[in-house]
Amino acid sequence: MSVTAPLGFRATGINAGIKPGEHRDLALVVNDGPSRAAAAVFTRNRVKAAPVIWSEQVVSGGRVKAVVLNSGGANACTGPAGFQDTHATAEKVAEVIGDSAGEIVVCSTGLIGERLPMDALLGGVADAARQLSRDGGVAAADAIRTTDTVSKISFRRGEGYMVGGMAKGAGMLAPALATMLSVLTTDADLTSEECDTALRAATEVTFDRLDSDGCMSTNDTVLLLASGAAGVKPDLAEFTKRLTEVCADLARQLLVDAEGASKAIAIEVVGAASVADAVEVGRAIARSNLFKCAMHGEDPNWGRVLSAIGTTQAEFEPDRLNVAINGIWICRGGAAGDDRSKVDLRPRDIHVTADLSAGPHSATIHTTDLTAEYVHENSAYSS
Amino acid sequence: MSVTAPLGFRATGINAGIKPGEHRDLALVVNDGPSRAAAAVFTRNRVKAAPVIWSEQVVSGGRVKAVVLNSGGANACTGPAGFQDTHATAEKVAEVIGDSAGEIVVCSTGLIGERLPMDALLGGVADAARQLSRDGGVAAADAIRTTDTVSKISFRRGEGYMVGGMAKGAGMLAPALATMLSVLTTDADLTSEECDTALRAATEVTFDRLDSDGCMSTNDTVLLLASGAAGVKPDLAEFTKRLTEVCADLARQLLVDAEGASKAIAIEVVGAASVADAVEVGRAIARSNLFKCAMHGEDPNWGRVLSAIGTTQAEFEPDRLNVAINGIWICRGGAAGDDRSKVDLRPRDIHVTADLSAGPHSATIHTTDLTAEYVHENSAYSS
Repeated sequence: MSVTAPLGFRATGINAGIKPGEHRDLALVVNDGPSRAAAAVFTRNRVKAAPVIWSEQVVSGGRVKAVVLNSGGANACTGPAGFQDTHATAEKVAEVIGDSAGEIVVCSTGLIGERLPMDALLGGVADAARQLSRDGGVAAADAIRTTDTVSKISFRRGEGYMVGGMAKGAGMLAPALATMLSVLTTDADLTSEECDTALRAATEVTFDRLDSDGCMSTNDTVLLLASGAAGVKPDLAEFTKRLTEVCADLARQLLVDAEGASKAIAIEVVGAASVADAVEVGRAIARSNLFKCAMHGEDPNWGRVLSAIGTTQAEFEPDRLNVAINGIWICRGGAAGDDRSKVDLRPRDIHVTADLSAGPHSATIHTTDLTAEYVHENSAYSS
Repeated sequence: MSVTAPLGFRATGINAGIKPGEHRDLALVVNDGPSRAAAAVFTRNRVKAAPVIWSEQVVSGGRVKAVVLNSGGANACTGPAGFQDTHATAEKVAEVIGDSAGEIVVCSTGLIGERLPMDALLGGVADAARQLSRDGGVAAADAIRTTDTVSKISFRRGEGYMVGGMAKGAGMLAPALATMLSVLTTDADLTSEECDTALRAATEVTFDRLDSDGCMSTNDTVLLLASGAAGVKPDLAEFTKRLTEVCADLARQLLVDAEGASKAIAIEVVGAASVADAVEVGRAIARSNLFKCAMHGEDPNWGRVLSAIGTTQAEFEPDRLNVAINGIWICRGGAAGDDRSKVDLRPRDIHVTADLSAGPHSATIHTTDLTAEYVHENSAYSS
C-alpha cells in the first residue's frame, strides 16, 4: 500500500543502473491532485547534500507535484556540480511528467562525496515515468533501500481519507545511522500550512526520537504530500494523530532494521522538569557506547545509565534518581535498588525507565545496542 | 620512577583483596614535605562518586598529605553509606600515617553501584602504610589498573626539580572510556594556587583532549602534589611546560592502551575561528561512531568527517572545508579532492586534519577507532 494507499498518487521503483546489480535504485512518486499541498522536514546537519538544498527551496513554496528518490549515491559534498545534477534531475522529471521543476522534490541516499551517474539517473527517470501506477508504492519503497534489509511501508485509515508512507534508513532525522528518507501521502484536503503543522508534530515524537547511533546524516528528509483526492477536509488533530501513527510505525520498522543491532531499546525518561530535559537525558543515555554495549551483553549495568544522566544539564539531584530495566527498579535514590539478577535482558525489546524525580514530564527515545556487527558493517561501507 | 621520582614522596601498591585474584588493588602515595601544596581537577559528570565528593572538599583547602587509591570498585552511586566508606578510608589513612583525614585524598575505580569490601580495604591501608618506600611508584601505578593492560608512568626533569606521574584508564577527564585517575608529583616548591594554575593549563591540552568513547566517568581525578623537597621555586611557565609534558606522555599511554582499540587517531582541527570551535569540531569527529568504524576499516571516508563537522555550532562554510587523512587532502572545498586511494591507513597512528577555513586557531583531539573488541570488552564488564 505504502505511498499509493491514498487516492491521487502514482508511484514506481525501478532499476536504473545507478548502483551495481539487479536492485531497484530509483523511485518516483507523483501527486495527481487535485491539490498538491506539501510540507517537509530536513536534516539539521549544516553540511547538507545538494538534494536537500534544492528541496528546501521547492518545499518553501508549499506545493509539490512529485518526488524522485535514488539510492546508490547521496550527492552530498559534491560541490556546485552536484547541485547541478540535482537540478537536472528535477528538470528531467518535470519534462517527462509535463510539469514545473520548481515543484519537484529530489532525495538521494548512499555514499557521500561522489557524483551520481547522471546518464543512468536521467534515463531511469524517463523509464520510471512510463511505469507509474496506482499500485507502485511497494516498488518505490523497495527502490530507496540501501543497507535496509526490508522495505518499510505503512498506512492508516482516517475519517474518509487515508495516510500512507514509506521510509528507508536505520536512523533518524536529527542524528542518523544512515540517511533517513520518508515520503508520506494523504488524500485528505489540507493546506500546506496544515501539512507543515501536522508533519512537525508527528515527526517530533517519532522520527526525531530515534537515536540509533547519534550520527546525523547530510540527506535526511521527511516529506508529506496531500492530494485532496478524497475530497475530505479532516479535523487537523485527528489527521495529526493518524499521521503520527504512520510515522511511529515506520520509525519502529527503521529501529528494528538498524544496522547490526540485536536489541530495540526504549528509553523512557519520567519525572522530568520539562519535555526538553526528558529528551536530553534520553539522548544522552542512547548515545552512551558503554550503555549500548552493556545492553548488547545483557548486563543490567545501571551505573552506565546514571553516568550518562550526569553528563546532561537537566534538572535532577543525583541521590533522587531511579532506574528500572525491564520493570525491575535496580537503582533507587541514586544507589543500588532491587536485585539486578531479576532483570531479564534476553528479549529483543528492552525498556529502560529513568526517573529524574524532578517534575511531571516525560519522553521516550528509541535506540539500539552496539554490536560487533555494527562495527563490521560500518567499517566496510565505502571500500 | 613514577610518582616517587621527585624527592619527598613515598608510595606503594599492594594486593589488599579488594578484587579477586593476585593483582595489586590498593595504592598509597604520601607527601613527606616540607610542603604539601596540592591541586586537582575532577570529572564534570554531575553524578559524582563518593571519593570525588570527598576529595573535592579536601583539595579545596589547598593541602594534601596523602592519596589512597583503589581499583576493584568505583564507590559511585552508593548513597550515604558509600560516602561513609570513603570517609572511613581517609580516617584510616590518617590514623596509620599519623595525620589529619581532612588532608587525605581518596580515589576509587571499578564498577559503579557496589559497596567496597571495607574490611579488605581498611586492612590494606594499614599494610600499605608499612610498605611505603621511595621506590614504590611503579607498584602504585600497577595497583590502580583496571582494564589497563600496562601501567602508565612518566617523569620529566626541570631546572633543579622533578615532575613524576602515574595514570590509569583508557579515557579522559571529561568524557571517559573508563575512569581516568592520575597522580602527579613534584619536589618543586609551589603554592597551591600555582599548582592549580599549572594543573589546569596542563590538563586542558592533554587529558581534556583525549576522547576515546565520549563517555564521562563518575570518578575521574587528576591530582598534583608538591613536596617542595628540592628547595627550588621554579619559573611557573617552565614548570607548567614540564607538567604538560608528563600529562601528554601519560595521555598518550592511555590512548594507546584504550579498550579494544586498534588505531590511535589524532584529529587536528585547523583554520578555526576560536580554540573552542576547534575543540568542538574535533570532539564531534572523535565521537562519530561511523567515522571511528571507518578508521577501523582503514576506509578514508571523509564524508563522515564532514557529516560530523556539520553537527557543530562552529563557524564554517560547508564549501570551504578541507580534510586530509595521513597527509592526503582527500576533501577540498567541501567536495572530493585528491585521490582517496593514496591514503595509507595501515599504520596504527592516524592523523586527520580538518581545515575549517574560518580563522587562525587550532586544537588536536585524540581518539581511537571503534572495534568489535571494544564491544566485546564492554559487553561483559560487570557480568
